[in-house]
Amino acid sequence: MFRHTKRLQFEARPERPDPLYARKLQELIGGAYGEMSVTMQYLFQGWNCRVEGKYKDLLMDTATEEIGHVEMLATMVARLLEGAPATMTADAVKDPVMAAVLGGMDPQQAIVGGGGALPSDSQGVPWNGRYIVASGNLLADFRANAAAEAQGRLQTARLYNMTDDPGVKAMLQFNLARDTVHQKQWLKAIEELESDGLETPIVPNALFDEEDQEHNHTIWRLSDGTDGKNGGWTQGDDPLEYLEDPQPLGGPGTAPAPDPALYGTYNPIADAKGTVKGKAQAAVKKAKGK
Amino acid sequence: MFRHTKRLQFEARPERPDPLYARKLQELIGGAYGEMSVTMQYLFQGWNCRVEGKYKDLLMDTATEEIGHVEMLATMVARLLEGAPATMTADAVKDPVMAAVLGGMDPQQAIVGGGGALPSDSQGVPWNGRYIVASGNLLADFRANAAAEAQGRLQTARLYNMTDDPGVKAMLQFNLARDTVHQKQWLKAIEELESDGLETPIVPNALFDEEDQEHNHTIWRLSDGTDGKNGGWTQGDDPLEYLEDPQPLGGPGTAPAPDPALYGTYNPIADAKGTVKGKAQAAVKKAKGK
Amino acid sequence: MFRHTKRLQFEARPERPDPLYARKLQELIGGAYGEMSVTMQYLFQGWNCRVEGKYKDLLMDTATEEIGHVEMLATMVARLLEGAPATMTADAVKDPVMAAVLGGMDPQQAIVGGGGALPSDSQGVPWNGRYIVASGNLLADFRANAAAEAQGRLQTARLYNMTDDPGVKAMLQFNLARDTVHQKQWLKAIEELESDGLETPIVPNALFDEEDQEHNHTIWRLSDGTDGKNGGWTQGDDPLEYLEDPQPLGGPGTAPAPDPALYGTYNPIADAKGTVKGKAQAAVKKAKGK
Amino acid sequence: MFRHTKRLQFEARPERPDPLYARKLQELIGGAYGEMSVTMQYLFQGWNCRVEGKYKDLLMDTATEEIGHVEMLATMVARLLEGAPATMTADAVKDPVMAAVLGGMDPQQAIVGGGGALPSDSQGVPWNGRYIVASGNLLADFRANAAAEAQGRLQTARLYNMTDDPGVKAMLQFNLARDTVHQKQWLKAIEELESDGLETPIVPNALFDEEDQEHNHTIWRLSDGTDGKNGGWTQGDDPLEYLEDPQPLGGPGTAPAPDPALYGTYNPIADAKGTVKGKAQAAVKKAKGK
Amino acid sequence: MFRHTKRLQFEARPERPDPLYARKLQELIGGAYGEMSVTMQYLFQGWNCRVEGKYKDLLMDTATEEIGHVEMLATMVARLLEGAPATMTADAVKDPVMAAVLGGMDPQQAIVGGGGALPSDSQGVPWNGRYIVASGNLLADFRANAAAEAQGRLQTARLYNMTDDPGVKAMLQFNLARDTVHQKQWLKAIEELESDGLETPIVPNALFDEEDQEHNHTIWRLSDGTDGKNGGWTQGDDPLEYLEDPQPLGGPGTAPAPDPALYGTYNPIADAKGTVKGKAQAAVKKAKGK
Amino acid sequence: MFRHTKRLQFEARPERPDPLYARKLQELIGGAYGEMSVTMQYLFQGWNCRVEGKYKDLLMDTATEEIGHVEMLATMVARLLEGAPATMTADAVKDPVMAAVLGGMDPQQAIVGGGGALPSDSQGVPWNGRYIVASGNLLADFRANAAAEAQGRLQTARLYNMTDDPGVKAMLQFNLARDTVHQKQWLKAIEELESDGLETPIVPNALFDEEDQEHNHTIWRLSDGTDGKNGGWTQGDDPLEYLEDPQPLGGPGTAPAPDPALYGTYNPIADAKGTVKGKAQAAVKKAKGK
Repeated sequence: MFRHTKRLQFEARPERPDPLYARKLQELIGGAYGEMSVTMQYLFQGWNCRVEGKYKDLLMDTATEEIGHVEMLATMVARLLEGAPATMTADAVKDPVMAAVLGGMDPQQAIVGGGGALPSDSQGVPWNGRYIVASGNLLADFRANAAAEAQGRLQTARLYNMTDDPGVKAMLQFNLARDTVHQKQWLKAIEELESDGLETPIVPNALFDEEDQEHNHTIWRLSDGTDGKNGGWTQGDDPLEYLEDPQPLGGPGTAPAPDPALYGTYNPIADAKGTVKGKAQAAVKKAKGK
Repeated sequence: MFRHTKRLQFEARPERPDPLYARKLQELIGGAYGEMSVTMQYLFQGWNCRVEGKYKDLLMDTATEEIGHVEMLATMVARLLEGAPATMTADAVKDPVMAAVLGGMDPQQAIVGGGGALPSDSQGVPWNGRYIVASGNLLADFRANAAAEAQGRLQTARLYNMTDDPGVKAMLQFNLARDTVHQKQWLKAIEELESDGLETPIVPNALFDEEDQEHNHTIWRLSDGTDGKNGGWTQGDDPLEYLEDPQPLGGPGTAPAPDPALYGTYNPIADAKGTVKGKAQAAVKKAKGK
Repeated sequence: MFRHTKRLQFEARPERPDPLYARKLQELIGGAYGEMSVTMQYLFQGWNCRVEGKYKDLLMDTATEEIGHVEMLATMVARLLEGAPATMTADAVKDPVMAAVLGGMDPQQAIVGGGGALPSDSQGVPWNGRYIVASGNLLADFRANAAAEAQGRLQTARLYNMTDDPGVKAMLQFNLARDTVHQKQWLKAIEELESDGLETPIVPNALFDEEDQEHNHTIWRLSDGTDGKNGGWTQGDDPLEYLEDPQPLGGPGTAPAPDPALYGTYNPIADAKGTVKGKAQAAVKKAKGK
Repeated sequence: MFRHTKRLQFEARPERPDPLYARKLQELIGGAYGEMSVTMQYLFQGWNCRVEGKYKDLLMDTATEEIGHVEMLATMVARLLEGAPATMTADAVKDPVMAAVLGGMDPQQAIVGGGGALPSDSQGVPWNGRYIVASGNLLADFRANAAAEAQGRLQTARLYNMTDDPGVKAMLQFNLARDTVHQKQWLKAIEELESDGLETPIVPNALFDEEDQEHNHTIWRLSDGTDGKNGGWTQGDDPLEYLEDPQPLGGPGTAPAPDPALYGTYNPIADAKGTVKGKAQAAVKKAKGK
Repeated sequence: MFRHTKRLQFEARPERPDPLYARKLQELIGGAYGEMSVTMQYLFQGWNCRVEGKYKDLLMDTATEEIGHVEMLATMVARLLEGAPATMTADAVKDPVMAAVLGGMDPQQAIVGGGGALPSDSQGVPWNGRYIVASGNLLADFRANAAAEAQGRLQTARLYNMTDDPGVKAMLQFNLARDTVHQKQWLKAIEELESDGLETPIVPNALFDEEDQEHNHTIWRLSDGTDGKNGGWTQGDDPLEYLEDPQPLGGPGTAPAPDPALYGTYNPIADAKGTVKGKAQAAVKKAKGK
Repeated sequence: MFRHTKRLQFEARPERPDPLYARKLQELIGGAYGEMSVTMQYLFQGWNCRVEGKYKDLLMDTATEEIGHVEMLATMVARLLEGAPATMTADAVKDPVMAAVLGGMDPQQAIVGGGGALPSDSQGVPWNGRYIVASGNLLADFRANAAAEAQGRLQTARLYNMTDDPGVKAMLQFNLARDTVHQKQWLKAIEELESDGLETPIVPNALFDEEDQEHNHTIWRLSDGTDGKNGGWTQGDDPLEYLEDPQPLGGPGTAPAPDPALYGTYNPIADAKGTVKGKAQAAVKKAKGK
């Protein structure tokens, strides 16, 4: 169960409105790597966690914090939209900068949200549940979390350079800091899973003896660059092997004859030249026509 | 530019058809962590890569391999669907096992695909482009790749236990092996980025001085479990600090007065008890009615 | 900012697992009228609310409760999936009831979620942000809320009849009760908005003088049934007028000549018979060919 | 079965083109609360209606009208796009107002639609079937209809302020009027359902005795504002009770031990401090490794 | 403007309910090639048509018919669901055929639709507006229409074999017939566009002189099969040329140096071996760190 | 299995950056008729093809070429974005042309893609798998291919007019040429299927005797235009018949009485006037309340 305090985790007050930036900030709310994603990813991982204790608690602490980040961003968006042009006047049309603002704003923030934030990204695509993962395997999931926080901090850093409003920058400095903590935290939690003996570096910690032993250590060169062999991955302990000219192992990818009731095109005795014998035509026609 | 050979990278031939399993395998084709995702993720990362050489070559080698994995799975699905019930007979209805198969099959594999694979997951949701990321920052992206291969191998391992067909298992043993290689490869490539001096562990390698120095090392306890402090993350080098009772730093999350032209509900002089003065009503009404 | 307690708002413990029902319950988690929808709808409405006091507090109280409902349902799903068949044995295939379960389960709850809940509905479609609305106009939004709680209680009632597990029924009895409260609450809040003088029954409280006075009180009979006039809506105070044989008011819905650079098909002098004159052809061809 | 007349229900003729506004109008065509939504919602409700007579006729009358509203808007969009810049000239680039228009237009209206309307909203997201509901319960559905018409008139009103074109305004005055009628009509139909004895205010009219009697009349204060108790909802007949300090009723939200074949992370004897005993590690490893 | 008659275009009455088939029929309602698609495709094409007369009239005639097809199918689905199991009894669980039905039904038809049809396909994915096209170019669009009717008749034919209910088969015989007419009609309309001189076989009828003259008649062999040259396409009038060993014409697909403010990974002087010079590291670090 | 060469199929080098155009070009990458669509459509058709030889080889040749087209466009986008404004300076805000560029750019190309292409269309909607079809019936699929290439060349032609950059135009001239070849190729392959006797003009080549013989040759006039009869389709061989005043053939589209457990609104003895008898109310209430 959850409780809410009306105070924000951190202040979210721009010095002045900026409707174009309000659109860009939507990426951090409803983008694939925005705060709705980490909120839901950590909540579902916490609820799906089968190890009581430190891992589950860390997940729920962080998930609960992230709901508050959506709140901060939604508040910021509403304030950035204050006074945004909501009526069309003759002056607006003639002023080129105003025209640019009118053209570049997120129209739904006005028409749908009445000057508020939306659960969408900076292109207006709604957030959806396929953005997140909660597999029950903590190593797989923490790795996804570390990746999400990396993309999240990267996007925040890019947005940081797209404004010079001190109030916005102050909030983003807080967000950058939290993304730094969370990256560290998941990277350290990955180490902890291994030092606890719960997981090993390859996910899942199973089926190593059953997997194909010949092809679990080779890089297949399938593009004509040759530098794929020149990385550390082909050296040191447990080096990967680089195959310069790998050949396909399977036969041709043919599909079986179709069920006549599905009316797939089929020609049982077409030869390699693609010519079709008269008898085959009759047979096919009969098989398909009835 | 690409070229194709008709031979599969590895054989994809089941011993016998299994239409229920053909549905489950769709997850590895069009699921969020299926082969279409890694194909497109690595292709776009390769095309978006600004470092010529080993990293780009590795991306393009692996991307090109993954297209062939989609091919193997699509071929396997078509073969698993061979002879699947496509017509309704009286016998089928009465046989309970057949009834279960009819109920559990992916209806679109027959109706839409004519007995072939679809670019969808095991619940029929089509693959979409928001599943992938190609940010131009190789550390962020390789971390996403290592996470994707972890989820991918995990799902493959789960599916491995859901069949006892030797032909399917043989192919999945190959897939497990490739997922092992690719996990290793991206984990090693992450180390390489750091040893090359191109990136450091926190993404992006920037804005460390500008980010909020007070909040870039603290875990906020916002759930009532207390084990969040008992992980390795609060110990060793660069330990994170655990705040037992963190308090919000911002003010309340209020939104500004709405533009009258947007017709948001607004009551300028409502007091804390929520009562409304007559004059305010008149003002609001006038502002809104015209 | 939010805080979390590990205890559930209400117990969520089934007497026995039921993987088919675990799939159906997904509708209450990630369906268009599930708990993720009301959570996000009330959160965004609360953040977008421009009237401090009772309305905003009620929104935030209810939103915060709903996050806990997602938690209860996610916990219930994980418990209903305990021991669900995750491996394929010869026995399973031959047992028709087991075959039916295997066919009817949500395959992603196993393959993707590892036996946990997903942010999707009962057909596997992910929740998305277009399911919610937060317009800033409280009457419009509270009406949407009352509608959402009505659909939500209706779906819960239907699901209540699809199980006889006492533990599941106990939780759903709680959910039904909360949906009853929330329906009442939004219906009463709608009255409150009107008694406070903030809104009137038609949304928005504006443009009544400007809207078309001739067509703001008529029902157009456009289907051949004639009972549309026999409802209370054509009687009493402010009755609507029923037009037995309404005629279109506009001209034909023609589109203008296309810009040649867009290559739309166009024939400037085609006559009513659709024949085309030679000169027109030449003109069109020239305009389009270059 | 349907029939079509080529005349529009109301004239849709702008005085002059306005490509930026053509983009905004897409919200009323393909937005979540646009005309495609009410068209499809009323059609499916009508087809799903189990009460012949006035309710079904009203649904079909209104549904059929709404198809014509999509038609009016699509026609308006095509006319607003007449002469929109479809070629790139040196002059266009240098003129800042033209540049703003080029940047703010919906690129798909030109590239995909050839200067015509699209079944998408103002951000280009396609309309989809999850926007609508047709539950068979008329009270639940009419409440959704009243809510939809409220959001629809609100969005129309906002768009009305974003243009000063007399032709556009005339059509929107008609649309506002129709939204007024339809709001009234559904609100009155809700009363009718109750006066006919078919439904009562809480949806569905069932399970009142079975629902949890202790929790069907309480507001849980879960946010720290205290004004949630100061609304009319805690007064008058059938008042709701306000719980100042509600406590969770359930136990912790734990998930059961995972099936080993799903490879979830699990540690059966980890203690509350999160430390892991050696034997447990071995057991887990063995369970998972094979 | 549209009008509706309550009689169906053709009878839609099954002899007996069949909930599994009710799910499959959803494909013809809300699938990518279902009746909602052709309805909306023809409506938007009709509204977007710039040639008054026979083409536009044919579009509007057919579009209007298709709305009625959605109606027939929705009615059929409701009737096929009559008496479908909506409560869970002990008997149902034990009967394997009933268990299979319970597992194979569309759960949303009951939970969401109350026993009615949904605007979704047979896997529950909602219909969406990107399924259709209305480009303004009639040849491009009629070709899409002929393709849509082909897929539609194919799916109908497949579904025809999946039932032996005489009532369902009778309706599908009508649908097959209409799909036959509509295929013919669009194929003939394509010929008409050409005989009217409005379009020529290649869309659009423009830019033939400007397109690359060297590459507008060659098939590139990029897969190792060699039968691509053995079709009629390399013979007769205007034969296509088959390139046995085509070579790429462009240079490498490199991307430019990234803007430092976007924090892409970049290494200006990395050599072909992928090693990194110390100075470069310093430069990169400085450029990126600040 | 696939292989990759680093050289592009054709050069993709703009003379100068153009971030607004980079957004528009996304339509050709991730739009419904963009290169990702034809890539995936031909790949899945090739894998699903049951006729070995010329048809399958042609599919795989073309599919493999199309992957390279995505590559060319992605490279072009990255180069068009070189130097696009990624930081906000005071000068940028004041310069109206720069402001227009800032407003009209795709914000995700910077924030998410770091200056690279995305798997989305020009409105930012991600590509998804429902855009494609691979039915196993080659005539149905080749018709879809010819339609896709027509829309593709049309969109390319429109985009060709929206730039005057010689480098972009050169690449689009190549793309136009390839779209010309591919249109011809699929049109010729359609003829080939017929001349080989594998398919006949109506898809599928089956059920002609079983389909409704009365309604497989009539155009129903359901719109009030009368020119639908004036096309070639009502003349010549196998003319279609034009019904001036067609009447519905079915009865009313009623839905059956709902299952009480689904709580649909139902009134068994309501008369045509919509009045409700007291006894009916009681019966309904009882049936529904329990």
